[in-house]
Parts: sequence; structure tokens; C-alpha cells
Amino acid sequence: MNTEKNIVIIGCGASGGTAAQFARKTDRKTSITIFEKNGYSQYSKCGLPYAISGIIPQLDNLIEFNEEWFKKQNINLLLNTIVEKIDIKNRIVTAKKANTAIEKSYDSIIICTGAKPFIPPVKNINVEGVYVLRSIDDAKKIKSFIKKGKNAVIIGAGLIGLEMADNLYKMGMKITLIEAFPEILPNTIDKDMSEIIYRDITKKITVLTNHLLTNVESINGKISKTIMKNKITGNEEKIPADLMIIAAGTKPEVLLAEEIGCKIGNTGGIIVDEKCQTSIPNVYAVGDCTEYKDFVLGKPMLVGLGSIAVRQGITAGVNAAGGNHKLLKGFLQTSTSEFFDWEIASVGLPSKYLGDKNILSGKFNGSSLPEYFPGGKPITIKLLVDEKDGLILGAQAVGDKAAQRINTFAAAILGGINVETMRKLETAYAPPIAPTLDAVTLVCDIVSMKIERKNR
Amino acid sequence: MNTEKNIVIIGCGASGGTAAQFARKTDRKTSITIFEKNGYSQYSKCGLPYAISGIIPQLDNLIEFNEEWFKKQNINLLLNTIVEKIDIKNRIVTAKKANTAIEKSYDSIIICTGAKPFIPPVKNINVEGVYVLRSIDDAKKIKSFIKKGKNAVIIGAGLIGLEMADNLYKMGMKITLIEAFPEILPNTIDKDMSEIIYRDITKKITVLTNHLLTNVESINGKISKTIMKNKITGNEEKIPADLMIIAAGTKPEVLLAEEIGCKIGNTGGIIVDEKCQTSIPNVYAVGDCTEYKDFVLGKPMLVGLGSIAVRQGITAGVNAAGGNHKLLKGFLQTSTSEFFDWEIASVGLPSKYLGDKNILSGKFNGSSLPEYFPGGKPITIKLLVDEKDGLILGAQAVGDKAAQRINTFAAAILGGINVETMRKLETAYAPPIAPTLDAVTLVCDIVSMKIERKNR
Repeated sequence: MNTEKNIVIIGCGASGGTAAQFARKTDRKTSITIFEKNGYSQYSKCGLPYAISGIIPQLDNLIEFNEEWFKKQNINLLLNTIVEKIDIKNRIVTAKKANTAIEKSYDSIIICTGAKPFIPPVKNINVEGVYVLRSIDDAKKIKSFIKKGKNAVIIGAGLIGLEMADNLYKMGMKITLIEAFPEILPNTIDKDMSEIIYRDITKKITVLTNHLLTNVESINGKISKTIMKNKITGNEEKIPADLMIIAAGTKPEVLLAEEIGCKIGNTGGIIVDEKCQTSIPNVYAVGDCTEYKDFVLGKPMLVGLGSIAVRQGITAGVNAAGGNHKLLKGFLQTSTSEFFDWEIASVGLPSKYLGDKNILSGKFNGSSLPEYFPGGKPITIKLLVDEKDGLILGAQAVGDKAAQRINTFAAAILGGINVETMRKLETAYAPPIAPTLDAVTLVCDIVSMKIERKNR
Repeated sequence: MNTEKNIVIIGCGASGGTAAQFARKTDRKTSITIFEKNGYSQYSKCGLPYAISGIIPQLDNLIEFNEEWFKKQNINLLLNTIVEKIDIKNRIVTAKKANTAIEKSYDSIIICTGAKPFIPPVKNINVEGVYVLRSIDDAKKIKSFIKKGKNAVIIGAGLIGLEMADNLYKMGMKITLIEAFPEILPNTIDKDMSEIIYRDITKKITVLTNHLLTNVESINGKISKTIMKNKITGNEEKIPADLMIIAAGTKPEVLLAEEIGCKIGNTGGIIVDEKCQTSIPNVYAVGDCTEYKDFVLGKPMLVGLGSIAVRQGITAGVNAAGGNHKLLKGFLQTSTSEFFDWEIASVGLPSKYLGDKNILSGKFNGSSLPEYFPGGKPITIKLLVDEKDGLILGAQAVGDKAAQRINTFAAAILGGINVETMRKLETAYAPPIAPTLDAVTLVCDIVSMKIERKNR
């Protein structure tokens, strides 16, 4: 009797590749097969904007683990292979590579089908020069449309939209950035925080908030203009466009999971538990196709961050191979980016998504260094605290070392440190590095004093 | 009847000045008097090395709160005023300014007498060109001895010794750095960590570890040579010296406190509780003259960091003015510095001071950015974990954003997060900022895997 296990992984993105890697680490012998519908092994999607502008010299540089690597790990990676059916009764996956059908029996399956870009429901959008940015192939198309002095319109002022705006701006393009929300970065930080960046970048690029894409004009099948509508005034505006990039969010790709009866949550993502198990036995799901609880709210949310996808990949990989690994009770949603020389970072959700929580917030705006030391850079931190118990709900930072400062608040949330205790945290101090009382401390002071005043 | 309280503060260093500031914030009316024996109001001692080299243009730039500021706060600051006696029975402080005696009654007194430099017990040490670095006046003397191409000998390879070495090196001096311990930074990080820096700086300066100062030679009252002894071989060595700086640690200045009967701990510091109270009623003490418990060990330690002095100052100031403020149960000893382009930071004590703890340690050495992104800088983190419960005892970092990375571990210690949970912390990820799994995570992985192997 063959006791060797078969693990089948569908998708070799960050989550799928990581799942394979950790399944292998957990069990040296188990058979691991990855079916990947595209032609590339595990690469960094988040690096695409920088490979488009050439900061990362070649698109191929983004490949973190190549076919050779998977081979060495004794992982059977099949590229350009589409999974057509999962038979959960007989535990067989059917896939197709070119015209060859492949059947593979499995003990565990890990679904890593990712997400598909949201495309605004606009006529004429399928013309040349209109692209999303989800893959190396998308990036290649975008690259061929970059020309100094030409017009690029970007739909969506989230992290990817702003990263693309910055990278295309660096290539000499004229940028118009369109956002339906009243503010940029609506899903990452509060409006009063994103305005710090907004005020600066609008000197370099055109940003239209409260605007929706309504139509696209083309000449000889190539985009020539985008038509935008101001949500407030109703006015329409035509903007010349030689390239348009849609970065307006994504929807989980759950077709296969739905077909076999995996429970899908209200968010549209596959419901998974802390072991990354779906509602179907021996079927795991990880990454952008799943939903999981938010750490602070306990409410299901879509997983949209590479850092979380990788952590889920670790968990599913270990568990599918017979190990025992659990996620935290929810995800912290720590995220960061950098554009137009601004580093931003956040943990937890912006205020508008915190629902019925009574939020006490405070904002510190100062320098990264003591006043007397030259070279200090601006840093602004906003802290959101639950009025009830002083527990930290989220933190947002714009400026110097924003990401590492936010990591400290991520640890505070994870450790259940309330703001009154957090203000006493000894932060590292030295004149060339940080002030005696870092921005991390001072923003806690501001919120703690609000609490004290309330309790008086 | 006059119900106004009198607070007397002895010393206007970081702790004393901060205590005055927070006493004023707590009570707008209370009378606050500071007696400061030197001629400067609150300034940054930690900034001195940088004002010597001119990175901070003027020594006066270091003054963070000038006499005018204290006046505006209605705080009575008397410079050049020496406290001669504290009468705890009648609650009167007697001081002397020039030849005038001053008597001041008090309700609370805050002792902030700081520390005095340790001077090696060596003959002939009182010659011109031999200085400590504790005050603006010391810095002025040192400044007058700086000359390009001349020889500077620094006794003590702690944080201040290395900061001075770097700043004098930048001024073109030839540096010899002497350390009695077998390693540099013996009280901050472990030898395997400080060696990263040692290997690099010895290309630029001479570093003699395991060496003791045994004598000083002079010509016309000015230093000409230092004589060093190798502790291992016993060999003596003469080193030309035009300037010698002693940075060999400090001893708490507790004379006044002792006279009135404050309990002094085995460390030599004034014993204080979490409210910064000494053993004598209404007498507080803060800063380098005190000892307080270490957070991890629960063992009394001397307070030697400006960041802690300031936090004690806040606590004593608030409490002396009738408020209620407590320190954390112990101090985390978070510290950082930068020299020769190396950023270092640590929280908790080096391994050799962790006594009977069973330490599991791990070290991660990698890049601050994903492999595919240009411009990544080296970062090494070492983590010390209690084998018993996985709790973090300390962390040490050398390299990119060491300080902010260490702050995240300081929060983990404060929050009682063990290493297995900490490895699951979602750190902020974006290609230009940090890898999917930051050094903070990967060092936890390394230690967690050691624990898993042990438990198998």
C-alpha cells in the first residue's frame, strides 16, 4: 500500500508557491503538484510597477522561485495548465496543458486562485492601451505603451494606482489619477492623513477624486480619451489618454471552489478557518480568493495583501502536509508603500470602516529627529483607539520610517497593549536616530490625554 | 493659610528639567524651583559628540529648554547654584549661588543629581588633554584639542566611546579605541553582533580590546602618550596621544541622597519605586542617580539612558505635583546609536547579563529589501528567548532601521508576546520598503524552529 500523500495546489502565486514550499519543509516525501494557468512560476506581483519603470531592471527579476527551484525541491510545477474540474468524491483533479488532459488524485488540495481585477462597466473599454496590472503579461503590454510626454490615466488611487502613477511619472508621462472616493488611499488611511500626500502630489500630477470613469474614446482601436464624471456636480470631462491603467480593486476568483461547494462568504471570498481549511474536507484555500477575520473587528474581510497571502500559504502548506499550523485569530492588515517620496503605512482599517466602535483618535505631526539635530524628516502618525478600553484599533503613518513605526503598533495590537501602557514603551533614542520621545510615543500621549480628560 | 505647594528639584538635566515641566503641566499653581550647579539649563548630553564634530553646528544648539522657557513656565530656575543641605525634618533645602545662601522650604523634593564619570585609577591622569564627556564645558575643552592628523585615544568602547571615535574620525584625527572587555559595546549587544561592526571599523581606526589604561605620559603638562596593558598577554604598549577621552562608564551621584538617609541599592544608585519615590517620604529621585528594576529580570539596575531619565522625570514631576503616574514594572533598556555608518539598537540586556535564564537565541542576517529590489541594506537581528516559555528576553540589531525594528521587539516584550506568536506578526510589506517576511519575522522563525526541534 502506498502511504505517500498527494498534495495538489492550484495556482503558483505568492500563496500557492509558499504553500508548496512549506508543505515540502513539513514532509520531505509527500508528492506535491502545482497547476499554474499562466506561464510563470512564483513571482512578486507587488514588484510589477517598479519593473515597468525600470527601477527593477527586468520583469524576469521578479521571479522569486523559478521552475528550476521547484524541481530541486521535488515539487512538480506545471505551468500553462488550467484546472478544469475537481472531483471531491473520488479526489481527482482534472487539468489541461495545451491539449493534453491531466488527472491527478489528491489527499489535500490547496486552492490559490487569487483575484481578478474589477473592470468598470463601461462601453468601449476593450481597446488597445487599456490595461490592468495583475501579471507579468499585463506589465509587458503597459511597458510597450510608455512614452515620455504622453498621457496616462490611472483609474483608482489605492496603493497600486499610486505606485503606478509614481513610476509612470518617473518615466516622463503626464498623469491623471482618478478616484471614486472623495480621497486618495481610501482603503488604507483616513482622509486627513492622505491629504498630506494629496497636497504634495497634486503639484506633479492631476488627481480627480469623486470621479467615475464613464466612457473611453478610441482612434483606430487605440485609446485616445477617457471620459470622467464628477460624482458631485455631474459634469463630464474628457481627458486625453494614450494609456489607461485600471487599478480599481479586485474580486476573488472562486469559480472552482464554488463548483465543489466550498462556502463563499458575503465578501465574495472563500470562507477559511485559522488552519486555512474551507468547508469541504481536505480542501484548503489561501490568498486573495479567501476571506478571513479582521483581528480587531472579528469580522470577515477579503484578503488582499501579499504579506497575508504568504502567511496563509505557510499555514495551508504545513497543514496539508500533516503538520499543525494556525493563523492568528484575525489579520492585522499591516500594509505599506512608497510613492512620490512619501512612505506610508497602516495597521488596521481606516476610521470609516470601524463601524460601531467609539473611536478616540489623535494625530502627532513632528520630526523624525530631535529638533537640534540636522536632517530630521517629517513624520505624522494617527492612532485610533477604542474609547471603551483604550485598546488600539489601528494606526496610520505618513513619513519617515512609517512602515517600521507601524510594525511597532502592529505588535501592540497583537499583544493587547492599551494606549496608556503603550505611551510608556521605551523607544530607542539617540540624536541621529530618533528623539527621546519618538512619534510612536507622542501620538499615544495625545490620545491618552484625551482619555484622561474624558475620565475627569 | 498658604496651600500652595513647593516643589524643589535638584539638577536641571534631562530628568530634572522634564520633572519640572510635568509638575507644571499637572498643577498650574504649584511653586517649582530648580537648583542647577552648572551654568546651563536643560540640554541634550547625548548630542555632545555631534556638537563637537560640528554636525550640530553650535554647542548652544543642544539647549532644549533655555532659561527664558523655564521663566515662561513660571519655573524658578537657578543656575550655578549648589545644594548644600537638605533638612528633611523641617523640609528646607539650603543652597548657595555665588556667595549667597538660599533657603527654600519644600513639600516635595526631586533629586536629579545624575552620575559622575568613572576615572580609571591611574597616576598622572590629571593633565591637559585628558577629558571626560559629561557636559558642555567638557565638550568645549575637547573641541579646543581637535586637530586633523593628531592622535586621539578613547577609553571605553561603549556607545559614547564609539560615537566620539566616529566624530573625531570625521574631523580627521587618528583614533585608538581602548576597551577592557574582550569586545566592543559590551553592555549593549553580544560579541557576535558587535563583531559585525568591529570587523568594519578596524579598517579605519585602531581598536584594542582586552586592554587597560595603566599610565599617562605628558610633556609640559600636556598629554603625550597613553600606556596600555594587554590583559591577556600582560604586554604594555605606548600610544601617542594628543587628546584622551575617558568614556568608561559612570557612577551615580548620591551624596545628597545618602546624607538624608535615602536607601542606596547594591548597584550604588538610589532605590526608587514605580512612582519614583525614595525611601524618604516626599523625596523623589530620577535619572542616572537611581536604580530601578529591569523589566525582564526584575533585578535592580542602574538607569543610564536619557530615554529612561526623561520617563522617570515625567513620573516624578506628575506625582510631586499631586498627580498619579507610574512607571512600567521595570525598564526595557531600549537603546540605539549610529557610528561609522552603522545603526545599532537593542532592547534588554546582552546574554552575559541574563544570569540563570536558559536562553534560546537565533540570528538572522539578510537584506532590508526583497532580493529583486535594488538598494537593500544589510540587517542582522539577534533574538534572545526564554527556553521555558518562549518569552522574548531581548533583541539586538545591527543595520538598516535597527532602532525602529528593535522598538517592535520592545512592544513584544511589553505585551508579553512569545516568539511563536511574534513570528506570526504581519509586518508591513512593499518592495521598496521591506520584504514579505521582514528580518523581524525571520529571526522569530529561526528561534521558533529551535523550540520546535527541542519539543519533538
